[in-house]
Amino acid sequence: MKKIALIANTNKAKAVKVMEQVCNYLDSKGKDYLLEEDSASLLERKVKSEVYERLVDFADVVIVFGGDGTFLKAARTFAASDVPILGINLGQLGFLTDIEVEMLEEGLDKLLDGDYQIEERMILEGTVIRENQRVNRAIAINDLVLTKGPFSRIIKLETFIDGEYITTYPGDGLIIACPTGSTAYSLSAGGPIVNPKMKSLIITPICPHTLNSRSIVTTEDEEIVVKVDADHSEVMLTVDGQESFPILSDDIIRISKSNLVAKMIKLEGYNFYKILRNRLHSNRF
Amino acid sequence: MKKIALIANTNKAKAVKVMEQVCNYLDSKGKDYLLEEDSASLLERKVKSEVYERLVDFADVVIVFGGDGTFLKAARTFAASDVPILGINLGQLGFLTDIEVEMLEEGLDKLLDGDYQIEERMILEGTVIRENQRVNRAIAINDLVLTKGPFSRIIKLETFIDGEYITTYPGDGLIIACPTGSTAYSLSAGGPIVNPKMKSLIITPICPHTLNSRSIVTTEDEEIVVKVDADHSEVMLTVDGQESFPILSDDIIRISKSNLVAKMIKLEGYNFYKILRNRLHSNRF
Amino acid sequence: MKKIALIANTNKAKAVKVMEQVCNYLDSKGKDYLLEEDSASLLERKVKSEVYERLVDFADVVIVFGGDGTFLKAARTFAASDVPILGINLGQLGFLTDIEVEMLEEGLDKLLDGDYQIEERMILEGTVIRENQRVNRAIAINDLVLTKGPFSRIIKLETFIDGEYITTYPGDGLIIACPTGSTAYSLSAGGPIVNPKMKSLIITPICPHTLNSRSIVTTEDEEIVVKVDADHSEVMLTVDGQESFPILSDDIIRISKSNLVAKMIKLEGYNFYKILRNRLHSNRF
Amino acid sequence: MKKIALIANTNKAKAVKVMEQVCNYLDSKGKDYLLEEDSASLLERKVKSEVYERLVDFADVVIVFGGDGTFLKAARTFAASDVPILGINLGQLGFLTDIEVEMLEEGLDKLLDGDYQIEERMILEGTVIRENQRVNRAIAINDLVLTKGPFSRIIKLETFIDGEYITTYPGDGLIIACPTGSTAYSLSAGGPIVNPKMKSLIITPICPHTLNSRSIVTTEDEEIVVKVDADHSEVMLTVDGQESFPILSDDIIRISKSNLVAKMIKLEGYNFYKILRNRLHSNRF
Repeated sequence: MKKIALIANTNKAKAVKVMEQVCNYLDSKGKDYLLEEDSASLLERKVKSEVYERLVDFADVVIVFGGDGTFLKAARTFAASDVPILGINLGQLGFLTDIEVEMLEEGLDKLLDGDYQIEERMILEGTVIRENQRVNRAIAINDLVLTKGPFSRIIKLETFIDGEYITTYPGDGLIIACPTGSTAYSLSAGGPIVNPKMKSLIITPICPHTLNSRSIVTTEDEEIVVKVDADHSEVMLTVDGQESFPILSDDIIRISKSNLVAKMIKLEGYNFYKILRNRLHSNRF
Repeated sequence: MKKIALIANTNKAKAVKVMEQVCNYLDSKGKDYLLEEDSASLLERKVKSEVYERLVDFADVVIVFGGDGTFLKAARTFAASDVPILGINLGQLGFLTDIEVEMLEEGLDKLLDGDYQIEERMILEGTVIRENQRVNRAIAINDLVLTKGPFSRIIKLETFIDGEYITTYPGDGLIIACPTGSTAYSLSAGGPIVNPKMKSLIITPICPHTLNSRSIVTTEDEEIVVKVDADHSEVMLTVDGQESFPILSDDIIRISKSNLVAKMIKLEGYNFYKILRNRLHSNRF
Repeated sequence: MKKIALIANTNKAKAVKVMEQVCNYLDSKGKDYLLEEDSASLLERKVKSEVYERLVDFADVVIVFGGDGTFLKAARTFAASDVPILGINLGQLGFLTDIEVEMLEEGLDKLLDGDYQIEERMILEGTVIRENQRVNRAIAINDLVLTKGPFSRIIKLETFIDGEYITTYPGDGLIIACPTGSTAYSLSAGGPIVNPKMKSLIITPICPHTLNSRSIVTTEDEEIVVKVDADHSEVMLTVDGQESFPILSDDIIRISKSNLVAKMIKLEGYNFYKILRNRLHSNRF
Repeated sequence: MKKIALIANTNKAKAVKVMEQVCNYLDSKGKDYLLEEDSASLLERKVKSEVYERLVDFADVVIVFGGDGTFLKAARTFAASDVPILGINLGQLGFLTDIEVEMLEEGLDKLLDGDYQIEERMILEGTVIRENQRVNRAIAINDLVLTKGPFSRIIKLETFIDGEYITTYPGDGLIIACPTGSTAYSLSAGGPIVNPKMKSLIITPICPHTLNSRSIVTTEDEEIVVKVDADHSEVMLTVDGQESFPILSDDIIRISKSNLVAKMIKLEGYNFYKILRNRLHSNRF
C-alpha cells in the first residue's frame, strides 16, 4: 500500500479528532497519507491535502471518518476509480463502516498488514427522462427514492419491470434499493433484509394507499421504469438520502444496475450477519 | 329542515355542475338554500350566497360537493356549530361522503324526508407548545401528522401517553388518527381499521427506523404528548393532510380528544362496513 | 378482606415455592386463606384446600402464581363470580400478572392494605352453531382463534360484522381478540396494541393468502360471525391458546362481548403503558 | 421430442377430463405418450401407463394436469432427472403451471413445435440431525417450513446463517423459501416477492412473538441452521406444504441450496411479472 487518503465528516468534532489520531499513528509507522482539503483545514498542524474528488488520483485506499452517510458520499464519488474505501465508525453501529473507534489501532494494523478483503457492492444507476431527453443521471450505493413533497397529495407511480407493467403505487413514494441499502430506508418502509453480497434491485412502496403491495426483489439485470403522475404535487428523486432532484409529472425514471461497483474494505473478522444480529438485538436500524 | 347551505370544491368542474343540479332540484321542491360565495361565483345564474365561515349561521344542514378532502375542510370549519354535513361524492368511493352521484335525487329525497341519522364523530385537538407558550392549536377530523421535511434526516419523536413515556420513534414521523381517520393515512402507514363510531386515538409511526413498532390504540380520554428532537431537520404538523404548521426542535405537541364533534349526516342505508368491503374488494384506499 | 384463595401453576416448582412463602407471610399477618386442592397437595405442610371451581365460594380474592397462562385460566373460571384476581408473576414480564417476585411482600402489603383497584376487563363469548344447533360455547379473556390443523390446506373464513359481509379470509386462520388479548397472539399476527381498558373486538387474519387484509377494530356491541369453509381440512377453535374445540366445515362461529367481565386486581402503581414500554424495550412479546 | 408422460391430479375430475382431451390431441398429431398409472386407470379407454417414479425413464417431457400442488410433487419427484415439466392449470391462476385450459391446444402446439424455454429453478435441501445422526432429508421446490402443532405453545427456533447466530425466533414457526416459493406461504407470512430466476434462501418467521423480525434474503451458497427448542410442543417440518416430518426438541435442521434443479417448461410468452400483475390485481395469492 503506497498512500492513504483521509476524509472526515467535518461537522463532527470527534471525526476530526479521530482522524488526527490516525495521522499520528500513520506518522509513527512511516506511512504516507494525504487529507481531504476541508478535513485538513480543521487540523492544527500542516498536512498534505487535496480536493475531495482528486484524492483517488494520489491514493490506493481511502479512509473515511464518520457514519454511514460519510461513507456513502465517498463511495459514490470514487465509484469510477479502483480505490477501495474503509470506514471508521463514529456514530451508532454502522452497516457500512467497519472499524469501531475502540478498535482503531487494531483495525489500522489489519489494513496496513493487508489483512482484509475488498468487497464489491452493486451500485444503482438512475436516469430521469423528460420529454424524451435525459435531464439527470445519478448513481446510488443505498437507494434511489421517489417521494412527494411535504405539502403534496399522494403521487401515483406507474411501475414496470423489464418492460412489464406491474402496478401503479399510489402513496408517498417508492424506494428502489440495492442489497446494501436493504438495511437502510427500505427496511423502515417494510422491505426485507438482503445480504449485501447479492446483486438485485429491491422495490418497496412508501406508505402505499393500497393494501396489496409488498416488496419485490428483482434480478440484477432487470430494469425498473417508473412513470410519475404527480398531478400538481411536488416530487423528488433522492440519492442515498443525501442529494435530491426535482421531478415533474410525466417524467420517466429508469433504474438499473450500474456498471460501476463500490469497493469496500472489509477487515479480517467482518461479517454482515454479526452486525445484523447486533442491530436486531439493540433494536436500532 | 329550514335552509340548506351548499359548498362545492371549486377546482372540480363536475362538483360545480352537480351542485347546480342540486340547486335546480331544490328549486323544484321549493326548498330554501344558499351557496358558499366562491362556489356561487362559478354558477351562471344568480343565487343567494355567503362567506364560507358564516354559512352555518343561516343553514340547518350543509351539503358539500367533492371528495373526502372537501368534506374534511367543512367538518373542521363547522365543528363548533350544531349544523350537520352531508357529502356528495365526486371522486372515488369515499369514506366520508355519503351520496354517490348516480343516486343523487334519491339521496336528496332521503335528506328532505328526514330519512337519515346524524352520526357524531370524535375530533382530535392538537396544541403546539414552544418554550412554555402555546404557539398553535388545531382540530382534525382524520389525523394530526408530524413529518420531517423532504431534505431532512430522520427525526426523533419522544412519545408519552397520559404522562407515561412509551418510546422514541426515529423515522419519518408519527400519525395520531381518530377512528374516522383510521382508513386514511394511518392505514397506509400500517395502522388498523377502526370503526369510526369508536372513540380512541390511534398512534402509528411513519417508516420507523426501528423494527419494534406497532400501532397503539388508546382510550378516548388519554392525552398523547410528543417531544420533537429534530436536530437541524425541518418538521411539520399537518392537519387532515390539508394544513401545515412548522415545528421546531424541542417543541411539544399535545394531542387529545376535542370537546367538539363532527356531525355527519348518514342517510338511511349507510353502513361503514359496506363501504369498507367495497374498498377492500376494489383494492383502493 | 376476609379470605384469600391461592392457586399455583403446579408444573412450576418455583410457583409452588413462592406460594408457600405467601402462605407463611399470610400466617405471620394472621390472615385467613385456602389453597386450590392440587396446589395444596404439593406443599409439605397441611393447609386448608378446596377444588378449583369452588374456591370463589369461600374467598374474596384469588391470588394465582404462574405466568399469564395461569392467570387466564383463573379469569375464565371465575368470570361469573365477583371475586377479583391478582397474579404473582413467575415467568417473563407479564401483561396480566401484577406482582413481580422481587416485590412480593411489598405487593402483598398493598393488597392487604386495600391499596389497589379492581380493573374490569371485557370478555369475549363465542358460540359454535352446527346445522342450526348450538354445539359449543366458550368465553375468552385474550382471544378466540380459528386455525387450520397442521396437515391442512388453507381454510376460508367468510366473515361478517353485525350482519354485513366483510371478506373471506383465505389462510391459516383468524384471531378475534379482546383489548386484553391485543398484546398476545393478535400482536404476533400483526394486530395493533389496544389499551386493555377499551371495549372492542379486534379481528386479525393469520398468514392470509391475500395481501389486502389488515386488523379491524370494532365497537363493543358488534357481533362477528364467521362461516367456515374448510373443504377437507381440520379446523379448531382455540380459547386463550389453552382449550380447543374441533370445528367442521359449514360451522358458524358467533363472537361477541360477553356479559361477564374479568376482575383484575391492579395494585397501586400499575400502569399498562409502563409494562408496554418495558416489553418494547426488552423486545419480547 | 420423442415421448410425453402425462400425470393428472386424480382427485380432480376436470384434470382427468382435460388429460383425456390432450391424449386425443396427441393421437391426432401422431405423438407418442404414456400415462401415470393411477391417472390412466381413470380413463375409459386403454392407454400405455407406468408407475409415477419411472415415467421419466421413458419420457422427454412430463405434463401435469392440476394446480400448483400437482406440479410441486412432480418437480420434487423428477428433480434428479433431466426431464422438464409443463403444467396445465386447472385451478386458479397458478405461478407454476403455464397453460390455462382455454389455451390448451395453442399451448400444446407451442410445446410440440419446440416454442419454449426450459427454466431452471433453484431447489432447497433440508437435513434433520438428531443426536448427531441424519434422520431425514428432503428437497423442496417452494419451501421448508418448521411449525408448531395446533395444541402447542410457542416454539423457539435458534437460527444461524453460515455459522453466524442471527436470533432466536419465538412463535409459530419459520419458513425457508426458494425464490419460486416466495409467492406462496412465505408471502402470506409477510415475505417479499422474489423473481424466481434468482438463487437465494428467504427466511421468514411465522407470527413471531417479537416485533423486531423481518424477512432475510441470503445468497444461494449460505447454509441456514435451525436448532429447535420445542419444550413439550409438537413440531413439524413440512415440505412444499405437502409432506411432513415430526421434529423433536434439540433437533437441528440444516437447509441449503440443493445441487438439483427443477426444470420447468415455459412456453413462448411466459412472463413472471405478468402473472404477478394479474395476481396483484385480482387480489389473490
